[in-house]
Amino acid sequence: MPVNYTPPTAESLLPVPGVTLGATAASIKKWTRDDVLLVLCEPGTVAAGVFTQNRFCAAPVIVCRDHLARQHAAGSSFRALVVNAGNANAGTGERGLTDARAECVAVARLLGCAPEEVLPFSTGVIMEPLPVEKIITGLPAARAAARADGWHAAARAIMTTDTVPKAASRRVDVDGVPVTVTGIAKGAGMIHPDMATMLSFMATDAPIAAPLLAGIAREVADVSFNGATVDGDTSTNDSFVLAATGKAAIAPITDAGDPRLVPLRAAIESVAVALAQAIVRDGEGATKFIAIRVEGGRSVEECRRIAFGIAHSPLVKTAFFASDPNLGRIVCAIGNTATADTDTAGISFWLDDVLVVDKGGRAASYREEDGQRVMKQQEIGVRVELSRGRSAATVWTCDFSHDYVSINADYRS
Amino acid sequence: MPVNYTPPTAESLLPVPGVTLGATAASIKKWTRDDVLLVLCEPGTVAAGVFTQNRFCAAPVIVCRDHLARQHAAGSSFRALVVNAGNANAGTGERGLTDARAECVAVARLLGCAPEEVLPFSTGVIMEPLPVEKIITGLPAARAAARADGWHAAARAIMTTDTVPKAASRRVDVDGVPVTVTGIAKGAGMIHPDMATMLSFMATDAPIAAPLLAGIAREVADVSFNGATVDGDTSTNDSFVLAATGKAAIAPITDAGDPRLVPLRAAIESVAVALAQAIVRDGEGATKFIAIRVEGGRSVEECRRIAFGIAHSPLVKTAFFASDPNLGRIVCAIGNTATADTDTAGISFWLDDVLVVDKGGRAASYREEDGQRVMKQQEIGVRVELSRGRSAATVWTCDFSHDYVSINADYRS
Repeated sequence: MPVNYTPPTAESLLPVPGVTLGATAASIKKWTRDDVLLVLCEPGTVAAGVFTQNRFCAAPVIVCRDHLARQHAAGSSFRALVVNAGNANAGTGERGLTDARAECVAVARLLGCAPEEVLPFSTGVIMEPLPVEKIITGLPAARAAARADGWHAAARAIMTTDTVPKAASRRVDVDGVPVTVTGIAKGAGMIHPDMATMLSFMATDAPIAAPLLAGIAREVADVSFNGATVDGDTSTNDSFVLAATGKAAIAPITDAGDPRLVPLRAAIESVAVALAQAIVRDGEGATKFIAIRVEGGRSVEECRRIAFGIAHSPLVKTAFFASDPNLGRIVCAIGNTATADTDTAGISFWLDDVLVVDKGGRAASYREEDGQRVMKQQEIGVRVELSRGRSAATVWTCDFSHDYVSINADYRS
Repeated sequence: MPVNYTPPTAESLLPVPGVTLGATAASIKKWTRDDVLLVLCEPGTVAAGVFTQNRFCAAPVIVCRDHLARQHAAGSSFRALVVNAGNANAGTGERGLTDARAECVAVARLLGCAPEEVLPFSTGVIMEPLPVEKIITGLPAARAAARADGWHAAARAIMTTDTVPKAASRRVDVDGVPVTVTGIAKGAGMIHPDMATMLSFMATDAPIAAPLLAGIAREVADVSFNGATVDGDTSTNDSFVLAATGKAAIAPITDAGDPRLVPLRAAIESVAVALAQAIVRDGEGATKFIAIRVEGGRSVEECRRIAFGIAHSPLVKTAFFASDPNLGRIVCAIGNTATADTDTAGISFWLDDVLVVDKGGRAASYREEDGQRVMKQQEIGVRVELSRGRSAATVWTCDFSHDYVSINADYRS
């Protein structure tokens, strides 16, 4: 059960003109559910991606990067995304690359486009050969199933140990024309034995030029998916692709200073933040959702490092699980990640509105019962003031429960 | 129950000429056990220390650093260590410093020495005022209890949630004279609600000059305590002090090239490694002891970063708990900590003698049952070859069990 997250209904997800989605059951694992998804985009669609920094990145990530670079260089389209659940095609060496490229060739044949206009995503077990023939065999059925309102089914098809599908839509008016942003995502971090990967695909019908889209994808990922952490492990497959079909009846957006980018970027960010938070809320074993904001740093990087220091401390996470207002653990996590020149006398922190540490020491006003009250909530805000500068960053995490250990100590099934 | 660690008997711990130890029950918490320890050293003893890098370091750490610097500057002695369990005197601001200094003044009065010849250690709850009067009141009793064979009682008095006392002794011949090294330690990382701190005190009767001793303490800490991790949290109080009384009847060692340092340094390192491993073996909830060695790196720092990346991954640690030879998790942890220029095709790793990953991919010879056999052991060796250089590093860790969550989610008692 995710923490305060109700998955969207199929009806609430807005189709994006120029995009259809179809899923099929290809038996990648011993299951009967849909596990192969084909996202089809009309010619003229551009895409941008943000991928894992893990050195052992998966074959589909390598192929995605290569194909996106070719699309941008050639000015060609992004025509399709092919996704499978159940196998990550990671740690599979040359064979993995051959398999990922073979998927793209098969989709390209089906659509009559170039293989580099197709991007592959995979999620599932690491270091097992991809059953690529099963995927290729399933492609015609996935294509036949493709519908403009296929977002909800798509969100289901890419689930691994997610307990609910994750999707979100926003609509904004640009030049008096409604423009849509819809996205789906799965799985927080490495959330299950061998079930690696955060995957997200988002699309808009806004006509945003490819170079601008690449910048937006990076910026949006930084304030959404890159701020979400369940256990601190970055998987070999983490991928986020943002597509713009250009079907909305507004003039093309090619200039970074175009004021129409402001509401569009906000809508894209809003969908990405909703998906990133949904991933954390559905983190394995999560019973609490914690937003950690660090302010007053010299750089965003400094603030993020300290926020992640708190979010990744097993001691802090178990204290959240126990609803224990354990000041020392947060203080210790801050102290471990602050730079050597940080004056702890400038550091204060709050649990929601409760001042806990005031300028480096326990706040005179702090009462244990106030901290206890906040820690018992399902949603908890931690705010840290560093008093060193004007930068800030927010990350989201969940607590660390018995279920986390149970889920991850289960034998691979 | 620690993993494969039988605590030493009182008889097996060798007294160090020039050192006596006495403990007393000062009721720092609601318990009846000894909780204040006084280690007394004869004039002429020199000491060196290695302390936490946490920015919120505790008051006794600040005072220790200051007093050691004064001892070295003035050429004065290290005369006493005063330790309390039950309260860390951390996050206590100016009052904490005043309290830590007051302890030293009280010990100095008792011994007739200067306050800066006394070092304070504290371990226990963070952000609570130190009950310094209780400590000072207990000092005469601790002094009266001081005995040359008090090492075992001392190891017991500094325990917090340790399940067994930790101590070790070595004797080496130098110039035909037996020289002794004995040490005690407590608590791995931040191992319990509010029970912070790794503390270790070691002494030798070898006449080692203070500047040499400082270098030895740093080097030994790097290959012992700094390689031990339970949950990756560096506490506010971590402290290691190494003392040399000079009572052994050999000529003073003042030159770093003195060949007598070789066996001496080896004995000191051997005691430190035994204590560091004992801390990990007694890590909270530990059911396995895992030694992770990374070889073929360009620097020791690179090897340590990757080894800690493996040791700190909750997914790797839960896989060890489950005896699950989950290749993907170790591969993922390596990929997350390797530098951007690392060629994964050069990376291999072994579980004990079983080659799992061979040059970036699953080893052709690898059979799941071989991995399974090693993972079922209580002691597991992970060896990673990077094929980038000639540096290496070893760290020790334990698994992540349900008991870890239970211990840390218990309400503070």
